[in-house]
Amino acid sequence: MRIKEFSAVLGKKNADFALFYSSDSIKINPNVFYFSGYKGLGALVMPAKKIPFLVVPDMEIERAKKSMIKKVYSMEKKKFFESVYKVIKKNKLRAKNIAIDNNNFTLTSYKHFKKQFKNIKTKDINLDCLKLREIKTEKEIQILKKSCNYADKIIQKAINNFKDFKTESEASSFLDYETKKNGLELSFSPIVASGSNGSMPHYEPSNVKIKKGFCVVDFGVKCKGYCSDITRTIYVGSPSKKEKEMYNLLLSIQKNTINQIKNNKKCSELYDYASKILGKYKDNFIHGLGHGVGVEIHELPNLTLNSKDRIRNNMVFTIEPGIYFPKRFGIRIEDTVLFKNKPIILTKTSKDLLII
Amino acid sequence: MRIKEFSAVLGKKNADFALFYSSDSIKINPNVFYFSGYKGLGALVMPAKKIPFLVVPDMEIERAKKSMIKKVYSMEKKKFFESVYKVIKKNKLRAKNIAIDNNNFTLTSYKHFKKQFKNIKTKDINLDCLKLREIKTEKEIQILKKSCNYADKIIQKAINNFKDFKTESEASSFLDYETKKNGLELSFSPIVASGSNGSMPHYEPSNVKIKKGFCVVDFGVKCKGYCSDITRTIYVGSPSKKEKEMYNLLLSIQKNTINQIKNNKKCSELYDYASKILGKYKDNFIHGLGHGVGVEIHELPNLTLNSKDRIRNNMVFTIEPGIYFPKRFGIRIEDTVLFKNKPIILTKTSKDLLII
Repeated sequence: MRIKEFSAVLGKKNADFALFYSSDSIKINPNVFYFSGYKGLGALVMPAKKIPFLVVPDMEIERAKKSMIKKVYSMEKKKFFESVYKVIKKNKLRAKNIAIDNNNFTLTSYKHFKKQFKNIKTKDINLDCLKLREIKTEKEIQILKKSCNYADKIIQKAINNFKDFKTESEASSFLDYETKKNGLELSFSPIVASGSNGSMPHYEPSNVKIKKGFCVVDFGVKCKGYCSDITRTIYVGSPSKKEKEMYNLLLSIQKNTINQIKNNKKCSELYDYASKILGKYKDNFIHGLGHGVGVEIHELPNLTLNSKDRIRNNMVFTIEPGIYFPKRFGIRIEDTVLFKNKPIILTKTSKDLLII
Repeated sequence: MRIKEFSAVLGKKNADFALFYSSDSIKINPNVFYFSGYKGLGALVMPAKKIPFLVVPDMEIERAKKSMIKKVYSMEKKKFFESVYKVIKKNKLRAKNIAIDNNNFTLTSYKHFKKQFKNIKTKDINLDCLKLREIKTEKEIQILKKSCNYADKIIQKAINNFKDFKTESEASSFLDYETKKNGLELSFSPIVASGSNGSMPHYEPSNVKIKKGFCVVDFGVKCKGYCSDITRTIYVGSPSKKEKEMYNLLLSIQKNTINQIKNNKKCSELYDYASKILGKYKDNFIHGLGHGVGVEIHELPNLTLNSKDRIRNNMVFTIEPGIYFPKRFGIRIEDTVLFKNKPIILTKTSKDLLII
């Protein structure tokens, strides 16, 4: 995506090329995927003025050739940066100023890299990449909409079947199964946090019986590599009047916050708005208001207290206020939202309190 | 695990403490988990002579308190290393020589870290941690055995149901579902690669019909955070005599290689042995012979051509020769093996060619 704009970034930075790498088959460098569509191990080199290429281990060559990058070189076993260096020499690329992503570059890799690339300067382009990725293209928006549609369809099916799930794991594995059955991946391991477990925003579902009370279900799929993210809190049993009020308060805050979204609005102001109208529950809101969504589940913009980001056209992000009471329960309501002149909610599953 | 041995490592390195961090909720720093059992965001500080502690965001405090570490501090929002620095000052810890894991430390984090920790020296303990983790404790071996038992049980169930799966995704999501239903996690996204897809060792299953011919199924679960890893190649349809011979050749190589495993044996020699007896298929073997398995799916020892590792008691690793023919098919047979005076195969699913 946006390879031309990226070339302009390199030009401005006076960088000869950008070098990204994925050394871990579990967590692929998001920039490698964003620019190439390749999800395997290896390095992606993007020269400022020539076409990009991949250097990958033998076992990945066939997969790499199926990506958007047509120039693929073989990497010698265990000689990662040595192989990249050789290919760069072979292509007679100037290598004085090299752009790298400091946030996807480990100290170990840097040492190996500098052993090959001597007398060079590196320029950190982490933020430049995040800033590029923050504004989605029309093509990306179409994929993100599809991703959200799938998330809706699958979470709705889970809600419809919820009374049949005995344990949190069963509910979570149902979400998982439906995702894979549709040929999709998960954005993250689904969260099903019942009763007191709901007070831990990043709780991992376990093989325990679904407790009575609020149950937080946080779920998202990856469609063609693009994430969606949705949370619904349902109620197992009979909620008290106070519980209903609390849920509806949070829901109105979520809706009102979405209505505050305008072009150029500071993200920190949105956080502040939600935090203020939470009133006495302000301190029970223990995480950010939201985050950008794209090839990564967490990217720019940041909707937090100290964020410097502002809302712009074609951003896609979550709005997810929550309140948490340690050892008692938690409630969170989250949508993925596209901003295009106005906020457009992409996840459409009903937010009325669902009582199971 | 092995906190005493780790203190000795710090002593030998003259380090005041070790600092590990997880900044990504998708991929947790394996050392944070190994030493603390904590799987959330935050920093783990392990002083050479005092008890370890965690510094975590508010939203993770409750989860952190359920780990093996009882001393948990709150991290100020967005002030990761600043918070860690404050806690270290508060605890009056000397901070001159700090041990860090260079392979789980990004350039961005290092910059933030050095802003707080001035005039310090860092010592890379990546290899020390890997070396500690390479030799399993009795407790870990018990968990790894359990993890392999689960992997066996689930892959066997998938094999029994295989004829009902229409697509690769269906087979893969079945493995997924059974994993979660048992309250386990996946070690990695299951690989179901049928027909020509089997020639890509890291192929991702997709929503395509299962093709006739060899089908590689590579799968593993995480039980209490510990991985298992098993691959079986089954045959859909009627294999030719030559295909059967090829499968049985690979199987005999896998078995014979396991029989070569002895205490103090060089891992590179094991690779060499398997590679040699592959004869004319030597060049179709495009990846390592195996890898250690523990809290990470890939850890030490490395069973590759250039490995410097040797087999020792209480190591757990895979033996997984494979042969691949681009655009045609692939075959791989993999077991997780414990070495304890002799090789003990922990994954016990039958390796006879299964024809579906």
